Amino acid sequence: MTQPDYDPGPQIAYAGSIGLGTPDLEKSLWFFRDLLGMEVVEQVDGVAYLRGYQEHVHHSLVLTQQEEAVVNSYGFRVKRKQDVELFHKQFENQGLRTVDATGRERGRGEALRFLVPGSEHPFEFYYDIERPIAEESLRSKNLSNSSRRRGLGVRRLDHINLQTSAATVNQAEGWLREELGFKRREFARIPQAPDVIMASWLSVTSQVHDIAIGVAAEDRPGQFHHVAFNVENFHDILTAADQIRDLDIAYGAGPGKHGIGQAMYLYIHDPGSGHRIELYSGGYHIYDPDWDALEWKLPELQLGQTWYGDVLDVGPGGSFLSTTPSAGLVP
Amino acid sequence: MTQPDYDPGPQIAYAGSIGLGTPDLEKSLWFFRDLLGMEVVEQVDGVAYLRGYQEHVHHSLVLTQQEEAVVNSYGFRVKRKQDVELFHKQFENQGLRTVDATGRERGRGEALRFLVPGSEHPFEFYYDIERPIAEESLRSKNLSNSSRRRGLGVRRLDHINLQTSAATVNQAEGWLREELGFKRREFARIPQAPDVIMASWLSVTSQVHDIAIGVAAEDRPGQFHHVAFNVENFHDILTAADQIRDLDIAYGAGPGKHGIGQAMYLYIHDPGSGHRIELYSGGYHIYDPDWDALEWKLPELQLGQTWYGDVLDVGPGGSFLSTTPSAGLVP
Amino acid sequence: MTQPDYDPGPQIAYAGSIGLGTPDLEKSLWFFRDLLGMEVVEQVDGVAYLRGYQEHVHHSLVLTQQEEAVVNSYGFRVKRKQDVELFHKQFENQGLRTVDATGRERGRGEALRFLVPGSEHPFEFYYDIERPIAEESLRSKNLSNSSRRRGLGVRRLDHINLQTSAATVNQAEGWLREELGFKRREFARIPQAPDVIMASWLSVTSQVHDIAIGVAAEDRPGQFHHVAFNVENFHDILTAADQIRDLDIAYGAGPGKHGIGQAMYLYIHDPGSGHRIELYSGGYHIYDPDWDALEWKLPELQLGQTWYGDVLDVGPGGSFLSTTPSAGLVP
Amino acid sequence: MTQPDYDPGPQIAYAGSIGLGTPDLEKSLWFFRDLLGMEVVEQVDGVAYLRGYQEHVHHSLVLTQQEEAVVNSYGFRVKRKQDVELFHKQFENQGLRTVDATGRERGRGEALRFLVPGSEHPFEFYYDIERPIAEESLRSKNLSNSSRRRGLGVRRLDHINLQTSAATVNQAEGWLREELGFKRREFARIPQAPDVIMASWLSVTSQVHDIAIGVAAEDRPGQFHHVAFNVENFHDILTAADQIRDLDIAYGAGPGKHGIGQAMYLYIHDPGSGHRIELYSGGYHIYDPDWDALEWKLPELQLGQTWYGDVLDVGPGGSFLSTTPSAGLVP
Repeated sequence: MTQPDYDPGPQIAYAGSIGLGTPDLEKSLWFFRDLLGMEVVEQVDGVAYLRGYQEHVHHSLVLTQQEEAVVNSYGFRVKRKQDVELFHKQFENQGLRTVDATGRERGRGEALRFLVPGSEHPFEFYYDIERPIAEESLRSKNLSNSSRRRGLGVRRLDHINLQTSAATVNQAEGWLREELGFKRREFARIPQAPDVIMASWLSVTSQVHDIAIGVAAEDRPGQFHHVAFNVENFHDILTAADQIRDLDIAYGAGPGKHGIGQAMYLYIHDPGSGHRIELYSGGYHIYDPDWDALEWKLPELQLGQTWYGDVLDVGPGGSFLSTTPSAGLVP
Repeated sequence: MTQPDYDPGPQIAYAGSIGLGTPDLEKSLWFFRDLLGMEVVEQVDGVAYLRGYQEHVHHSLVLTQQEEAVVNSYGFRVKRKQDVELFHKQFENQGLRTVDATGRERGRGEALRFLVPGSEHPFEFYYDIERPIAEESLRSKNLSNSSRRRGLGVRRLDHINLQTSAATVNQAEGWLREELGFKRREFARIPQAPDVIMASWLSVTSQVHDIAIGVAAEDRPGQFHHVAFNVENFHDILTAADQIRDLDIAYGAGPGKHGIGQAMYLYIHDPGSGHRIELYSGGYHIYDPDWDALEWKLPELQLGQTWYGDVLDVGPGGSFLSTTPSAGLVP
Repeated sequence: MTQPDYDPGPQIAYAGSIGLGTPDLEKSLWFFRDLLGMEVVEQVDGVAYLRGYQEHVHHSLVLTQQEEAVVNSYGFRVKRKQDVELFHKQFENQGLRTVDATGRERGRGEALRFLVPGSEHPFEFYYDIERPIAEESLRSKNLSNSSRRRGLGVRRLDHINLQTSAATVNQAEGWLREELGFKRREFARIPQAPDVIMASWLSVTSQVHDIAIGVAAEDRPGQFHHVAFNVENFHDILTAADQIRDLDIAYGAGPGKHGIGQAMYLYIHDPGSGHRIELYSGGYHIYDPDWDALEWKLPELQLGQTWYGDVLDVGPGGSFLSTTPSAGLVP
Repeated sequence: MTQPDYDPGPQIAYAGSIGLGTPDLEKSLWFFRDLLGMEVVEQVDGVAYLRGYQEHVHHSLVLTQQEEAVVNSYGFRVKRKQDVELFHKQFENQGLRTVDATGRERGRGEALRFLVPGSEHPFEFYYDIERPIAEESLRSKNLSNSSRRRGLGVRRLDHINLQTSAATVNQAEGWLREELGFKRREFARIPQAPDVIMASWLSVTSQVHDIAIGVAAEDRPGQFHHVAFNVENFHDILTAADQIRDLDIAYGAGPGKHGIGQAMYLYIHDPGSGHRIELYSGGYHIYDPDWDALEWKLPELQLGQTWYGDVLDVGPGGSFLSTTPSAGLVP
């Protein structure tokens, strides 16, 4: 097949990494490495780079020892090397300010940083990333594993959940779709203000969401709700809940099964930083090229949040509403 | 973002359907509908159209009452309406014979039929397909389900496994990659004849395979090894095995976990037709745009076939080697 | 070993059956037989006798078409044939009124009926019970199954949960232990009235409880909270929840894992009668002959109720507080 | 209820512990403690005492550093303190030689050691055993756990599998039943020699077996086939298999589900000693006082061994036939 001579424009491949600031790196490392079973690929100058046992690239999680528990970056890998530069030009044409983020994370090549218009979340785009081989004691006999499964079995970053103010959520959600190519898969409007998107689940992959964006209870932009790490089966969520309930870890909600996305969840908080972490399993995939976004309305919306299991505390002052902030463009 | 003015060429979206001939339609319906839990969307003139509870299109399985248990078609949905015609032209340019398959399956629009060069499997490409709503008694409260989960919980077609002669497997596998855009994800060569691909797992989606192709024990083209239907969790495979062991159904192998693809399997045979059916769950997804195909060699290849659980009977005369034939270009 | 010449006194072997009155027998049969997968061993004159797939005796559940949804009987099998008569004499010596219940349930031999002093629950004791073979289409190849596993996989009655008034709970619980040989395994006192047992989990087997007895929110004797049926694995509870959420069945709570007993639960209501039914899996067994009852106090009591998962609605007016009544001595 | 004045004779409560000799204590500790998740309660002079997270007594496993991988003892707890002495007298009356084993294992009180007539396995009977509280870092919030669940989740010793010569198996099996009160639950005869018991599953509890005894391939008495440790769910067996396959541990068979007993299994070998260890989950319980032993015959016997999953290698020279020896009366 002779490929036509064209350029399809830059595209995102997947949600690749997150950079979490933590006031207690050792405690965060105990949580992500010793309990959840992630591999520390590299650690230098108060920064640790981790990945799950099915991730072959350098990292999907960067933990940085720092005073405040902010999210330093949301990393997305693009489909081709030239897409970093193509996105750069696209943003310049729009007048969107960008920063060269090359070198901000180890193991990664050229990178571009910018704030999502409206929601102000600091995204970083990159293509080049090393594929280090795990140290011998951790290697798996399975070619598709970068290391052996261990701990609670985190195998990869799954998705990122962002929140922003009611005044900016529509803008940000639209921009993600129109400029970055995310497709809206499922969504809900605020019942009392149906012009405003309460939450939208978006993906560039066949996942129901690589990112979600919704309205923050604190009505501020730049809020981080959670990052989800994927485990193999629903039962791994049960095992994680069983063990975590017995540890000194702030427990959010779960286990339960979302109607939206049909995956099982457990929300807990990294004891080093307080950031909310979701352990996530299952869900359906969308291969239909003509998928119409599913809209959840009351009263079904409750089943959308929790099909079965522990309900999410989303009432006034509810524990599920808390967020942590993000860093600015120049951190 | 202004999309450039170009045509990326035709692409396959996913493996959409399979048409199985069965000498005993009633028994096949008992198996797929009553036991596995699929929905019969339409049944007319000895042909039944079924889908899993997470499939919204008209069908992923066509059962046709006919004397011989052949596979009538392997259906692939393309990404855009025009891709049917674009593939048509592409094949014409190559001198590959095609047949208009429009109307051969109900619920589907324009369709193109051809034989894969070398392996001679009858593929059908289509885009238009109806999205019927299930009858009320079967409807789900979950928007992403086309019907309620029931039976052993088949939710969608997962992948198709094809076999052909040793003399044609390399040609066919290469053609699937070069002309149809399938990417090689994992593969193995015949240990005694390393120039020949023993099996190759290929996908256009993030799945490790939408189709696999390998060498048939009978060394003939056009062989069908199995079609896999997806269930939600490993445990659903255990439950299926538990029940099926107690029924009058030819049991192939499983439960076990493949090293290749990291999914759990159970191979059984449709008691109406004898075609091999796989119940399949889990596995990993490939989002890396620069994935290098993993090559399995002896002795690890055995772990690739079965990481744990019931081993596949692939020795001389082994039960896992049997296949059923496919129909020709003009059935 | 020459057994000494003695009589150890009568003993209960296990909680054997429950008789539920239902205003809609057909709907109850749909629920227990078609959905939960129990076998109807016999049905005559508006009374149906059911058992789980691992129960070999005639029935563990009797459904009787009648106007009111009361519990007609709580059946316990004794260890030896003579124990029915020995218990009879023991009760006579105490001045406890009994009724001959022989013939009240089909498939069963001599039976003794009485009301538990204080709580007034109608217990029936029996030893002789038929062991019918299932009809051929339901038989299992596994010798320890009375029929094939099907539906949601109910395999046996697990335990019964009784409630009574605060004024009678201590008396009833003590009588069950002293006169019937139940051992207290775990328990809690009412935090505001620590002289009163809030709930006590009791067994004659190695289960944590064959029966539980606690204080009814309505503060009346003779209340029935639920009967639990056992399924094989935690995951079977998830599957049941997944399907039941999508059906027209009153959903109570779950899935969740009790800290007390360490089993997984799902509380639903029989749509024919409204009686609360628990699907139950797992838990630990007590083989220690010198087990000391575990006392749960606030704040741990909450973890005792729900270690993880959907919490029980036990606040004022909570849905988990509802009960159904029991029949009297002479029904 | 006034208890009659009698003595029911001595009884066994449960299979309480096993003493394994290991040439590499450190490796065995890595296996049982670090991988399987057992607690080391005490370690002194090359002897380590371990228990599962739901065991409250001092130990269920004793690992002794010694040259040969023999089984030093099979420990059974009796129902009452006086039963040790009552068994002693019973054995004396039979002329069975016994040894005072008090003090042979730490944490345990008075103990009696003898060899099972015919099979010559060294049993030890005891009642008194300490109930130490775990060190603070391991304690669970759940009252019924002696420590937090961790590793692969071993919660307790489940059963012990013994083998002996064909000439002695009937004698030993009969003696276990008649003198020790074990009940035969399921069994099979040797197809070619139907007078000889191939294997018998026996229990004093409601478990299908606390011990099994069968014919050793090497046709010698005193052989040890395996000890089983219990995990919570079938899925825990899958997780264990997944991890163990990737470690330097001799893998026997599994995961699979026995038809006999209906439990799930994984057979592996302690890398320090080579003794075969089973991870075991599920199964049914027998509460019927009039249970008739189930006899498995060919061809169903194969389903009895493996209902589904990885088959047991029991052919000539099969890996499932290997055993390790036991110590004598005076070790």
